Amino acid sequence: VNRKVTVAVDAMGGDYAPISIVQGAYLAAEELGDKVALILVGNRDKITDCIQTSRLESPPFEIEHAPEEVLMEEKPTEALRRKKASSIAVTSRLHKCGDADAILSAGNTGAVVASALLTLGRLEGVLRPAIATSIPTEKGVTTVLDMGANPECKPANLLQFGVMGSIYESYIHSKENPRIGLLSIGQEATKGNDLILAAHRLFSESNLNFVGNIEGQDILKGAVDVVVTDGFVGNVILKFTGSILDFLNSLALRHIKRDIFAKLGILLLKSALRSIKRTLDYTEYGGAPLLGVNGVCIICHGSSSPKAISSGIKVAYRMVIDEVNDHIKKRLISDGYMFAAVAPGSLKNSTGKQK
Amino acid sequence: VNRKVTVAVDAMGGDYAPISIVQGAYLAAEELGDKVALILVGNRDKITDCIQTSRLESPPFEIEHAPEEVLMEEKPTEALRRKKASSIAVTSRLHKCGDADAILSAGNTGAVVASALLTLGRLEGVLRPAIATSIPTEKGVTTVLDMGANPECKPANLLQFGVMGSIYESYIHSKENPRIGLLSIGQEATKGNDLILAAHRLFSESNLNFVGNIEGQDILKGAVDVVVTDGFVGNVILKFTGSILDFLNSLALRHIKRDIFAKLGILLLKSALRSIKRTLDYTEYGGAPLLGVNGVCIICHGSSSPKAISSGIKVAYRMVIDEVNDHIKKRLISDGYMFAAVAPGSLKNSTGKQK
Repeated sequence: VNRKVTVAVDAMGGDYAPISIVQGAYLAAEELGDKVALILVGNRDKITDCIQTSRLESPPFEIEHAPEEVLMEEKPTEALRRKKASSIAVTSRLHKCGDADAILSAGNTGAVVASALLTLGRLEGVLRPAIATSIPTEKGVTTVLDMGANPECKPANLLQFGVMGSIYESYIHSKENPRIGLLSIGQEATKGNDLILAAHRLFSESNLNFVGNIEGQDILKGAVDVVVTDGFVGNVILKFTGSILDFLNSLALRHIKRDIFAKLGILLLKSALRSIKRTLDYTEYGGAPLLGVNGVCIICHGSSSPKAISSGIKVAYRMVIDEVNDHIKKRLISDGYMFAAVAPGSLKNSTGKQK
Repeated sequence: VNRKVTVAVDAMGGDYAPISIVQGAYLAAEELGDKVALILVGNRDKITDCIQTSRLESPPFEIEHAPEEVLMEEKPTEALRRKKASSIAVTSRLHKCGDADAILSAGNTGAVVASALLTLGRLEGVLRPAIATSIPTEKGVTTVLDMGANPECKPANLLQFGVMGSIYESYIHSKENPRIGLLSIGQEATKGNDLILAAHRLFSESNLNFVGNIEGQDILKGAVDVVVTDGFVGNVILKFTGSILDFLNSLALRHIKRDIFAKLGILLLKSALRSIKRTLDYTEYGGAPLLGVNGVCIICHGSSSPKAISSGIKVAYRMVIDEVNDHIKKRLISDGYMFAAVAPGSLKNSTGKQK
């Protein structure tokens, strides 16, 4: 497929906006060339300023002016109601009206999710969209979802997360028939909380490549390609993971300060440590898609580097080109998941109880 | 207080039983001297064998023969029903009849919890016992509960975990008025799932030193002294944490193999790395008590070293000497938590809704 993909990028979102976003756009344009057209959405003066002070060449993007900004600490729905001309809202509307094929933001995650949901709506058959984050493991990359869009889930939501994650993983990370694991506290089907016990039954009856429950230690081992969990557990784990490097750093400082050999050792290790850190930095793996909305919405971490923004734009491009949403829709319809979700009484397990 | 504390230790539980348990008992006896009397419960021949092949001196403990063993992979309740003479069951009975003041096991956690609950019962006023695990943080030690005894919790359970954790932390880690945090996905009282939203209200109305919600990244920072969460989330995090070192190791190997300077650096770092690893190894912090049972029950990790067993015995000793259970009972009664838990309608917030 040789179509050109237009990505609308929120230039005002994130801790280092707009400079990090602008530089990310340059990077992406360099790598993807003619394949993408970029629209940077935000305060025109600030974006132009960035280009001039950074002495960058003629920008490889259009600018769509949006005078307002949703701040990181603002309440999502309130902010969106008050700021109709915020960069997040304008970005979503560009997608809705067809001027963009995909959107990306490193801003207030709650506001990006709410704006995408309100403006674009859900994909046909999807009960609840979910954020899918890819993290490094011993074996490569594993995608975990939901990473925080749904703190409270029903079993059918988890089943749909499995379907969406599986399709995403097979197209974006080119894995054939991805292995799906349900995060629990024991491998047996009888282990877990009420949500997981019920979800386990749904997964077992599905034709997904479901390997069963996995436990906390299996995530980083790379035991499965897709880890399904609710948005509460997913968010706690994501944030916990983000704090591990700081913790190890502080620990290392405490132990190494007293030891001259150790200090020398650290110097020699410097370049290896840098590449380890880079591997651990999940922003390197591109943005996290909000799967299940009627469009392509990529969420980047607030502290995203230009590299991370550029990776996110590439994920957006791949999602459009590979028509991931169409595949999700078809799969949900063909497998009857959307109906199963609405009427769980029609599943084998439930009817089996009647004698 | 100069009383002698008798600890009954399950000699057959854990991956390295009985040798690791026997050596742990020697270590503890050396450190605690006359303060403790130890009873090792298990197969008399195997224990005696251990002593002889290790060429240890006259054992500082009694042996209570228990001919059966609960295996690590057995189903807890089934195994306990079939094996009345298992080392886990006999250990609990020794405590129940008063021959021991505390018990410890590194065996099948589910079986240890079930056996303690069935044999000893719950402490007056406690709705559900919880496993409290202390982990290293940037600032020292933080206790997280529940670590897996209750995959499904009610708000009142979490409140009681806060009470028990607070008292445990103040006596065992000598912290005055420990700060309690509720693990959630945002600091605001409005962030979380249904369970956490309701629990937040109960904590806010309590007279505990409740600092509010904390997030995943706050645990290792040591932002609070006690982290309250349900047994599902707690267990996932505990197991996830246990896998981090392996992951970093595999990552380091991959990056360092190619780099001669890095290899040399690692050699120089060896002793510092060892002490970092020791700090990270949560078994060094002693066993995890099952708080809320009518007795003192310490759960050790299956892979416990002799050092970890000895630390666990010291925790058992402290819990008895400091009368932690009495303090929990008194606090629950004086603060009316037990009644609040049964009749949440009597709390301010609920009645406040009526106009």
